[in-house]
Order: sequence, then C-alpha cells, then structure tokens
Amino acid sequence: MEYIVSDISLKQETLLKNESIFSIANGYIGVRGNFEEGYLPGLNTIRGTYLNAFYDTIPIHYPETAYGYPHTIQRALNLMDSQGINIILDHSNVIPEVHRISEYSRTLDMKKGIVTRSYIYTTKKNETLRITFKRMTSFLQKELFIINLKVEPITYHGPITIESTLNGNIENYVNDSDPRVANGSSRLLTIDKIDATGCLSLQMQTANSDLSCACASDVVLSPETMEFSVDESAGHDTDKAFQSFSFEPGKTVELTKYNIYTDSLRHNDCLQDALKILSNCTERDFQYWEDEQKEYLTRFWENINISILGDLKIQNSLRFNMYQLLQSVGRDRFSNVSAKGLTGEGYEGHFFWDTEIFILPMFLLTMPEIAKNLLMYRYNILDFAKEKAKLLGHQKGALFPWRTISGPECSAFFPAGTAQYHISGDIAYAFISYFLVTEDVEFMYAYGAEIIIETARLWVQTGHEKDGVFRIDCVTGPDEYTAMVNNNYYTNAIAKFNLFWAWQIVDYFKRNLSVKKASSLLDRLDSSEEEINEFLEISEKMFLPYDESLDINPQDDSFLNKKPWDFENTPEDKYPLLLNFHPLTIYRHQVLKQADTVLSHFLLEDYAGNSTIKNSFNYYEKISSHDSSLSACIYSMMACKIGDFEKAYSYFLETARLDLDDTHGNTMHGLHMANLGGTYMTLAYGFAGLRIKQSGLFLSPVCPADWDGYNFTISYRQRKISITVSKHTAKITVDGEPLIINVFGTEHFINDFIDLPIPE
Amino acid sequence: MEYIVSDISLKQETLLKNESIFSIANGYIGVRGNFEEGYLPGLNTIRGTYLNAFYDTIPIHYPETAYGYPHTIQRALNLMDSQGINIILDHSNVIPEVHRISEYSRTLDMKKGIVTRSYIYTTKKNETLRITFKRMTSFLQKELFIINLKVEPITYHGPITIESTLNGNIENYVNDSDPRVANGSSRLLTIDKIDATGCLSLQMQTANSDLSCACASDVVLSPETMEFSVDESAGHDTDKAFQSFSFEPGKTVELTKYNIYTDSLRHNDCLQDALKILSNCTERDFQYWEDEQKEYLTRFWENINISILGDLKIQNSLRFNMYQLLQSVGRDRFSNVSAKGLTGEGYEGHFFWDTEIFILPMFLLTMPEIAKNLLMYRYNILDFAKEKAKLLGHQKGALFPWRTISGPECSAFFPAGTAQYHISGDIAYAFISYFLVTEDVEFMYAYGAEIIIETARLWVQTGHEKDGVFRIDCVTGPDEYTAMVNNNYYTNAIAKFNLFWAWQIVDYFKRNLSVKKASSLLDRLDSSEEEINEFLEISEKMFLPYDESLDINPQDDSFLNKKPWDFENTPEDKYPLLLNFHPLTIYRHQVLKQADTVLSHFLLEDYAGNSTIKNSFNYYEKISSHDSSLSACIYSMMACKIGDFEKAYSYFLETARLDLDDTHGNTMHGLHMANLGGTYMTLAYGFAGLRIKQSGLFLSPVCPADWDGYNFTISYRQRKISITVSKHTAKITVDGEPLIINVFGTEHFINDFIDLPIPE
Repeated sequence: MEYIVSDISLKQETLLKNESIFSIANGYIGVRGNFEEGYLPGLNTIRGTYLNAFYDTIPIHYPETAYGYPHTIQRALNLMDSQGINIILDHSNVIPEVHRISEYSRTLDMKKGIVTRSYIYTTKKNETLRITFKRMTSFLQKELFIINLKVEPITYHGPITIESTLNGNIENYVNDSDPRVANGSSRLLTIDKIDATGCLSLQMQTANSDLSCACASDVVLSPETMEFSVDESAGHDTDKAFQSFSFEPGKTVELTKYNIYTDSLRHNDCLQDALKILSNCTERDFQYWEDEQKEYLTRFWENINISILGDLKIQNSLRFNMYQLLQSVGRDRFSNVSAKGLTGEGYEGHFFWDTEIFILPMFLLTMPEIAKNLLMYRYNILDFAKEKAKLLGHQKGALFPWRTISGPECSAFFPAGTAQYHISGDIAYAFISYFLVTEDVEFMYAYGAEIIIETARLWVQTGHEKDGVFRIDCVTGPDEYTAMVNNNYYTNAIAKFNLFWAWQIVDYFKRNLSVKKASSLLDRLDSSEEEINEFLEISEKMFLPYDESLDINPQDDSFLNKKPWDFENTPEDKYPLLLNFHPLTIYRHQVLKQADTVLSHFLLEDYAGNSTIKNSFNYYEKISSHDSSLSACIYSMMACKIGDFEKAYSYFLETARLDLDDTHGNTMHGLHMANLGGTYMTLAYGFAGLRIKQSGLFLSPVCPADWDGYNFTISYRQRKISITVSKHTAKITVDGEPLIINVFGTEHFINDFIDLPIPE
Repeated sequence: MEYIVSDISLKQETLLKNESIFSIANGYIGVRGNFEEGYLPGLNTIRGTYLNAFYDTIPIHYPETAYGYPHTIQRALNLMDSQGINIILDHSNVIPEVHRISEYSRTLDMKKGIVTRSYIYTTKKNETLRITFKRMTSFLQKELFIINLKVEPITYHGPITIESTLNGNIENYVNDSDPRVANGSSRLLTIDKIDATGCLSLQMQTANSDLSCACASDVVLSPETMEFSVDESAGHDTDKAFQSFSFEPGKTVELTKYNIYTDSLRHNDCLQDALKILSNCTERDFQYWEDEQKEYLTRFWENINISILGDLKIQNSLRFNMYQLLQSVGRDRFSNVSAKGLTGEGYEGHFFWDTEIFILPMFLLTMPEIAKNLLMYRYNILDFAKEKAKLLGHQKGALFPWRTISGPECSAFFPAGTAQYHISGDIAYAFISYFLVTEDVEFMYAYGAEIIIETARLWVQTGHEKDGVFRIDCVTGPDEYTAMVNNNYYTNAIAKFNLFWAWQIVDYFKRNLSVKKASSLLDRLDSSEEEINEFLEISEKMFLPYDESLDINPQDDSFLNKKPWDFENTPEDKYPLLLNFHPLTIYRHQVLKQADTVLSHFLLEDYAGNSTIKNSFNYYEKISSHDSSLSACIYSMMACKIGDFEKAYSYFLETARLDLDDTHGNTMHGLHMANLGGTYMTLAYGFAGLRIKQSGLFLSPVCPADWDGYNFTISYRQRKISITVSKHTAKITVDGEPLIINVFGTEHFINDFIDLPIPE
C-alpha cells in the first residue's frame, strides 16, 4: 500500500465524501468518483465533470446594492457526463445495491494514476459475476478521460448488454444555506449539437460567457470481446446519446470508453477537435495509456522523493495530498487551482489566495515550471487587478480580486472579500519566493517586477502617513472573523515586504543586469527612481502593531480591546461559528477563524523577535477556532518554530487527514486544496525547518517522535537538495553546484552532502 | 398665499417631483399627485396610492449569505389606482399636451387640505373649455379619497363623456441601480374580486403576507349635472373597472368620485366594509367633506400657531413641511412614518430611526397624542426586537430593527443596517423625551419603562468593561460613511443616557408612585434592584471618546487616524459619494454622510463641554458631505448652539426648501420626512434654543437677520407655551399653570408671560 488509497466498504454515508476522495483529474479535466453504473434512486450524489477555468457568467442581484459591487460573477461548470456505463443482465440493470455486492473495493493507485473499482455482483437468480472498472484522466493527453470495463461471468451465464451514455442533462450543484457552497442557478449549459453517428458527441454552450465545450466519446471492444459481440446500436434523444453492445452469453466482456473533452478557451473548434483527438486516442488501447500514465507518475514521485519512515498511514496521506494537488493544478494560462481543485463545486470553482500561500510552495520546491505557470496566470489577469484598483478609488496600482476565474472580482460580500487587500501582497510574495528559489531573472524582468511594482503602488494609494508612520485602514486580514480593521498586522507586514521588494528588485537589476536595463524597465512601467525610492521609504515607515505589555503583535489596532469569545460556553455543535453566529457577533469578539498574525510570523519571521513570535502564537492559539481549513498547517509550522513539536505534530495530523477522515464534514463538496498544500508545507517548513530568504537557504530538521525518519527532495537554483532525517541525524545532500546552507543556525558549505546530529 | 403651495407651469421636468409635492394623504391613505386624466404616453410617472403599513413580504436572496440574515423583507405596496378619470370630447380623450393647455395651475391649500388643478383645454378644432379637479384624502374619514371634477365649456359645444376607472393593473416602482430606492419584484398584488355592479369595487391580495385590500369607488353627479346626463354605463375586464357618463353638449358637468380604501389589517372584511363606508360617504356631497377638512386643519394650524414675519416664502415652506408630516404620520397601532411617508416608494416604505429623532419632536411638542401613538408602535414590535437581540447573540435585551414595517428586520446590508445599534437608544430617548414633555407616568409605567429597560439590557450585553471603562465595539453610528467601528461616540452617549434612565425611571416610580409599584414593575420585567443598579454603574463607566489635543469628541476609536477625504479634488457630480465610490473607499476616509457626534451634542449636550461642542462642530462640519437629508437640520441647530447664526440660517434654508426645490434631486421618489421634521426642529431647538431636560424647559430665542420675527406654540405638561420672537425681544407666554422656564440662562417664574430683550 505504498501509493494506494482504498476503500472496501460501500457505506452510503461515505459515498459522497468518496466521490471527492476518488476524484481523478489531470489539471484540465476533473471527474468526481461517481459510479459509472449509477446508484440506487434517491441516494445522494454530486455527479460532476469539470474543466479547469471553464466558467459561465451569472448575473447577481443584491437586496441592497452599492457602488462598485460586481453585478456578475463567474462559476465553474459541471459539464456533460460521460461516466455513464450501464450493464444490463437479462433486461435488468446492474445497480450497486449493498446486498447484491460482495468483495467490493475501490483503489486509487497513485503510482499508476488509476482508480480501480471492482465487485462481485449477485443477480436476483443468485448468479454471480465480477465487474471491474478502471478509470483515469491522462496526464499526457489532457483531453482524455478513459474508462476500462471488464465483466467476468462467474456463475451468471445469461446475456450481457453494455450501454455507454453521454448525457447533456446536467446541472450545477446548489446549496442556498451554506455560504461556502455555490448558490443561485444550477442549469447553465445548453445543448448545441448532439450526435451518435460513428461515435457519441455533444457540444454545449454557456448562457452568458460565450464559451462552448464538447465531448466526443467512443467505446472500443477488446479484440477478444469483439468476437462475442452480437449486436451494436447507437442513438440519441434531445440531451442524451448512447451506444449499446450485446454479447454472447457466458463470455468475459472487456471494453474501453474514450471520452475527449475540449473547450473553446483552448480549442479552435471544440467539437471537431474533440473528434480528431478521439480518433487519435482510440488508436491506442487502454494498456498504452496506462503505461504512459505510470511513467509520468514515476518521474513525479522520484522527483519528490518523499517518505515517512515508521508511519505508513501518514506517508500515504501525505502522498495522497500531494497527488491530489498534482491532479488539480492548472497547466495553461487560463487555469489555476480553485479552492476545491477539480474535485467538487465548493466555492464555485474560484481561485483564491490559497494558491499563492498554501499551494504554490509545494510546486515551487518540486516542479517550478508549474509554479511559474501559476504566477503567469496572475500576470495575465493584471489588467483586471489594475481596473479594480481604480474602481476602489486608487489612482494606480493593482488590487487583485479576492475570488475569480478569468480575472474579474467574483466576491459578492466585500467586507470579507474585496476588503482582503492582502491578496495583492500575497501574490507579490509568491513572485518574490519564486525568484528566491529559481533566480529566474529573465522572468522577473519580463513579468515579476511589474507585478511587484503594481502591487506596491496599491499600498501607497491605500495607506497614508500619520505621526511618522504609514498606516493602512479598513482592510480585512486573512482571519475572516474580523473585518474592515485598521492596521491589520498581516496586511501591513506583507505590504512592507512588497514595498521593499519593489525597490529591491530594481536594485537587483541595476547590479546584475545593467543600470540601463533597470532604467528601461522603469520607463516601461511608467515608474521612476523617485517612485522606487518612495516604496523603500514607505516600507521603512510601515506601522506594525506591537503590544509591549503582552509582547505580541496585535492582529489590528482594535483587536486587543475587544471582548474575549466565550469558548467555554460554546458547544461543539456551534462550530463552525460562521454557520451559527451573526457576523456582527463574531466581529465583536476576540476569536479567529484562522491564523492571521501567526501566518505573518511564518511568512515574514524577520519582522518580529522570537519572543514576540512565541507569545503571539500562545495568545492567538487560545482564541482560534480553526474553522478554516487554512489554519491547522500554519499552527503546525509555527509550533515547530517555537519548539513545541508535540503540538506541531497534532496540528500536522489534522492537516494530513482532513479530507481522508472528513474532519470538517464537507469533503463531499470537494477536497480542501490549500490544506493539501499545507500538509507538504508542514513537513518542509515545519519539521524540516526550511526557510528560503534573500540570505539563502535555511534548514533545521527534527523528527516527530512518532516517526523513525523522513525524506524529501527540493529543487533550488538548478540543484536538487535532499533532506533525509532520522531520529537523531539530518543528512542534507546537494545534487549540483556546491551550496552554502544554514543548518541548525550555522552556515555549511555543502559540496556533496552533510550529516549532522539533530541538536536536543 | 398664506397656506398655499402652487405650481403654474406644466414642465415635464418637474412633473415627477410635483407628483410628490402635491401628494395628498391623511396618515392612512396616500395618493401621489398624478393626473386623473393621465399623461401623454412615454412621459415618466410614478403613479401611486399607498396605505400606511400595508405591505407584502418578499423573499430575498444573497449572492453570499451568512447566519442571521433576514431571508424575507417587507415592502409597502402600490395599491389599485382609483385616480383615473377620462374626459372624452368628440371621441378624443383630453390629455394634457402642453400646447393645448393654458392658464394651468395646481394649488395645495393647506388650510383646506385640498389640491386643486385647473386649466383651459383647447381641442383640435380650437374650441376651449375649463377643466378643474379638486382632490383630498379626508382627515375625518380615513378611508376616503375624494375627487371633484368640473368641466365648463367655453367655446366647445360638443358632447362630453366622463369615464371613471378603478385599475388593478398596477406595479411597484423599481430602480435596481439606486440603493435608496426599492429593487426586486414589482408586481405584488393579485386581483381577488372585481365588480362594476352598482359601484366599482376591487379586492386584491398580497402574494406572501396574507393581507388583502379593497377599494370601492362611485361617481355622484351634482344635482344640476344629473339633469343633462344622457347615458350611463359600467363594466370591467379582468383588472380594470369603469363607469361612464355622457352628457348633453354645451353644459357644465360637475361630479364627485368617492374612493374608499380598506385593508385587512384594520377591517374585518375589507370589501364589504369598503362598500358600507362608500354608501355612507356618498350621502354627503363634496362640500360637506371640504368643510370638515377645513375645520380640522383650522384647529391644527391654531394649535401650532406658527408664523415667520418678513419672509412669506420661508413661512410657507415651513408650513408645507409640517403639513406634509401631518399627512404622512400614522395614527393607529400598525403605522408609523416611513422615510418618504405616504408620498412615494423610496426606501420601500420602511420605518427608520428618522421617526424618533427627526419626526417625533414636532408631534411631541404640538400633538402629543400622535407622538404617543408613534411610541406605541415601537412598543408593539418589542417582541421582534427581543428576538432580534437573541439572533445577534445577546442573551437578553431588545435590538430594534434598522428598517421594518411590521417589526422584523428588513435591512439586507448589515454593516449599515443591523449594525446601527443606536436605533435602540434612539427609541429609548424618544420615550424619555415624551415623559419629560408630558409627565405621562401612567404610560411610562405601563410601556415606557419596559422599552427603556429592555434597550438598556442590550448595551450591557453588547459592550464589556476593560481598563475600568465600558466599551461598545463593532457598531455603526448614524453616519453611514463609517461602518462597524468601536466606541462610536454617538452610540456610547445614547447608551449611557439609556442606561441612566433605566435606573432613573425606576427611581422616579419609587418616589412618585410607591416602592411597591416600582418593585412590582421589576418583577413584571424579570428585573431586579441589582440589575437596575448595574445599569447606573455601567452608565457611569461608559467610555466617551475624547481627544485632548483637538478638544473634540472623536466619532469613534479610529476615526481621527484615518486619511482625510480629498474634498478639493471631488467634483460636484461625484456627490452623493455613495453613488460614486465603493463603500471601502468611503469607510477608509474621514468623511461624513451626516451629523453623528454633532447630533449627539444636540441630543445630549450635557455630556460635553461647550468648547468641545464648538470644536467638534468645526471639525466635523469641514468633512461632512451632507449626502443625507438628515444632516442639514442638525448642523443648523448646532450652529445656533455655538452662536453662528448666519451659518445656522444657511443650513436652515437647505432644510426648509429641500423638497420644494428638489435640492437632492430625488424628491420624485417621495418627500424626505426626516428633513421635514428637521425644519421644525431647526426653528424650535435652533433659533428658539429650546431644550427639554429633567431639570426643566430651556429657551434662548434669537431672530435670524432675514426675518422680522416669528412665533410658535408648544404643548408642555398640560400647558400651552407660546414663543413670540421679534428682532430684539422674546416673549414667552404660558397658558395654564405657572411654570419656571430657563430663558437665556436664567430661571424665570412665568405666571402669564414674560418679555425679555434678546442679549447681544
């Protein structure tokens, strides 16, 4: 079970959750783990197939509107369903009723990239047969979603008919009572073309965004099966097409269903392209695609090289989390990673700051090309961010949308949306991190500097100087249980860093490229030496709230004056608080949804002293509800920072198993992408103490008491660096040019490797 | 023109505004000043007939919802239209095309309570006739809306047909782009019964609130006209009923249309009741109702006894404003005064704090019975307020809705709605004011004390003690250009007063009724001596923000740290700011929509020193946009307070002429009720320096430079007190028991009257 996640019970309670867990995706297509043959009528399911960044635009109406509210929002779409395969035995469909099923298992093999579902089915006449589905979305051919079905008679000897369907009668999931799930209209796509000649095909169109998508689907029988085939037919009604195959009784049937998805964002003529790609793909059998997939994943795992010694369950959870991120991350200029990736419809498929702060680190350290693509996505929507800054009354600068798909703001509640100005700083931070890890000067010169300078401008525009310090009023920090405050520590700190780097990057170009190139960049960005110097000056004047008596950084100007939340009298079933208390009640109290100042102490540890970091951790931990899945990983890393490894490990367990154990109770709406990334961060930045700064690479590995050891490999400036930790020693291997690394607080010149005892 | 408002031009630009200006109402029915005969097609009109507090409930959907949001709101309804009277000459309808009309005039006679509209109409054949409509809603018979029509041939000698209609094909006005006007569904009433037998009648039903309303309408010809009548007919289609009358050519036609409105809130069987009332009313001719109306208004004006010497225009404006308030104020337990009264659909017919702070004072000082009814309305919705407090996480207390009709919260944007906790204090303040003016102990014992104690509880629940002071976090004060702040001065001050009076009123009962009665009150309210003493203690500990260096009361904890608004670079067309800037932009700056701290300095002047009041006035005046119509009157009164009478007069002019001159550009959506009340306040509390406190009555009259003098009469503790001011003297007359009044800072025992020189 090294790279295996499996489930052997067919409990209806976990079916919805498992639809998310067993999602397959390749960064482009995502298909939830629904059953090809369907469920019993009445059973809950969220049947879904998604394309990254494929959206419709929906008009929204406010009961009370105001200037600058977005009047349309985007949402990701559930596309035509090509999962359907009916197995008809003696005129009766195979439907997985629990009492007819035995030896049920569903397995995700993360080294193969395939989900296999298999069971023995007992007919009404007590005859049996084994049914096995294998499915994958190809990492090599992004448009391909492929299913292999084997029906093996055991004691059943009647006729077998297989019907493959392509269904355009689909809806988006809607839940009006939970703000974390989409609400509003559900039926968004209309059918444009449907055909069942030669193969099944369907083209659909969005209502408002002027996009279309297509799916072409065909079934290919295995050579052996072909010989027993007695009848084939195909047809369609207004919204559903089918192909049907009948076979001689008593024979094993094996077939492969190829589904090709295309869309007008990426394909010129999506229907024609789908048909063309389909005909290419069907030339190769399932085994071919399976082999290719395995080869891709072998490289992926080798590159990451991650193991936990002495805890297979945790090792597997960690790998699962990374694997799911690999599945959901977009790989082209349209796409990113939505809050639930390609695994569900929670948060309407929107891209948040989750990407930059929680997801990007793993890719940056293991597959920097993907990280670069995520950054390019932000660069591509820069014009939207500049427009939004203007809408918010700023003369220049870029204010990135709190949530979006193709660029425009899709948040309909500004106090916890647009007011989260920090997202612009987070994006700048991500570009800077990328630069620190890759030294990709060319990218920074062409794209990164522009982002950093445009976001720096936002801070100049938003804040103002008073009494010698620079203040930023009326913003919301990461913690959504407080809104529209003044001098949120997190926001001010990231703005300070952002402003500093707007100066720093130009200085870097001057020294490392040329003064002329630096100056031509300033021309291109309509900037000047004066502006760049002003950035530095403001950065230095930035007000970072500090409370002397507590030696902590207050979350904002007013936070410490508020009433403490009465945790003692808040029963378990009142969490998450946001579903049980009015926002005003929550805002009025000292209570956190998620790490805020503590997250800033992770991202920008040099802005606070160690005692302040420790005291802040202790202060905020007591009043954190962790109602957000973005919280536990941060507290885990920072518990490591302050040396409380037991606490760190307990938070780590929460992140590692959040979706697999459905600890937040909403995995059914999709996996929590930021938390998946957070698990990796907890290992790398938490237990291994990794930091990447302008001054270099820092490591300070420890081994959690429950483990025998662990290892992982990161990419850093054209090198591979492997960290291998055992109970008492840490080995750092540098593959590539020698490098100075600060390990346990001391700089080491590492040519090949270094093996150090872990200090007590 | 002593009590006359008139308009003699038929400009299309002012038609909509004049529909509001010439509204007629009687506290129950309101009818906008639409034309009976209609307009040319394509001309803008908001044709409306309203019943106070008659509403439907509308489901509302939030693009992003949260716990505790109201999911339905109420809105006032536009009812069946009984204004319609068509005049048909030679098969061609009289439609007021400008080039066919001469000698046009429309006149509101405030002493008669009648609007008369008259013109000479020229037919296509150049023949002329005079047409005169008179209309009123009866102050005596609340259900009656009556129209008298006279058609007098001049050179026209063709046939005349009059068609009276009752139209159920009506909609509510909708404007999606202006948050101050209703949005959402427009067609809310459906027709239940329609009939044209005997008279016209129509019963309609709301979609969700389970209310119905009816209108019965009949035309009675004058005895002379009856003789020339040649034909009568009546009928109806699905949504419109009509009566038609034809007359011999060349004769003067006079008829009266009686319309009776009823609704199921106030009538058992609204259709039957309407028919019954109609048959009673038609027994009296128009002259009878006109005479009754005049008598009622004569008493009204005598009681108020208001004049401005030397400025007839201003005198008339003042009287118009008072007259309109008299028209719109509700007189039963269901009704109150909505933001636009019965004159339009702005703010969806909701009742706000406008009533207690801006409208109630005039009634309290002139018609205390009406003031009492307004207070009883609040008492009747107390259960809703208690429920709302619970919803907001408070264990007890009453949080009154920011906007409502029958009691539930109808605000769909909590940062500038529900967060305005001060409304609960405002309501308590109004009860206390009523008590100070009337000494109505019985009322206070039965109702007032409960309101004051329940609202006091809210403050205990909302705030908390820290560092020895009591703080109230995360509320919005009256100024909506700042939201969700800590220790809003206005809120804390009114809470302090509210808490003090919760103790004070019980103490009063102890001393003036009996200890036993006081104690039985506490039992009834589930209160105790301890709780009452805690109120006093918290009142004394209440934190009132004060800035020593500026000697002002800061609007809230953070206000003075914010960036000043750039008024210099804000062009005229960017006002009101709320229509041109995102809320975040506005919240981030030092800019006011309306008086906040300055209003508190009016209501509770003893909480601040005179220099602080003056400095605060000067500080806030510079940064006030006065985008709210609730602002100018407060600045006028407080300019008087600080002795700047020139400034006071200029603000006074703004309040006096706001609707008549349409200075806010939105009079078409209804008259600004709070401002109408504000004009009276400016005279009484501003120029006459009236204050009513626990320690008695205070006056300090001055005469604006533009006037020769003024006078008005108020009711005070079973007395009539008349204030007559000339350029240099002020005469105070007490009608009733002698009274000590503080005039110009000195106490005077006044038996009959006193005449004092106005100090320089």
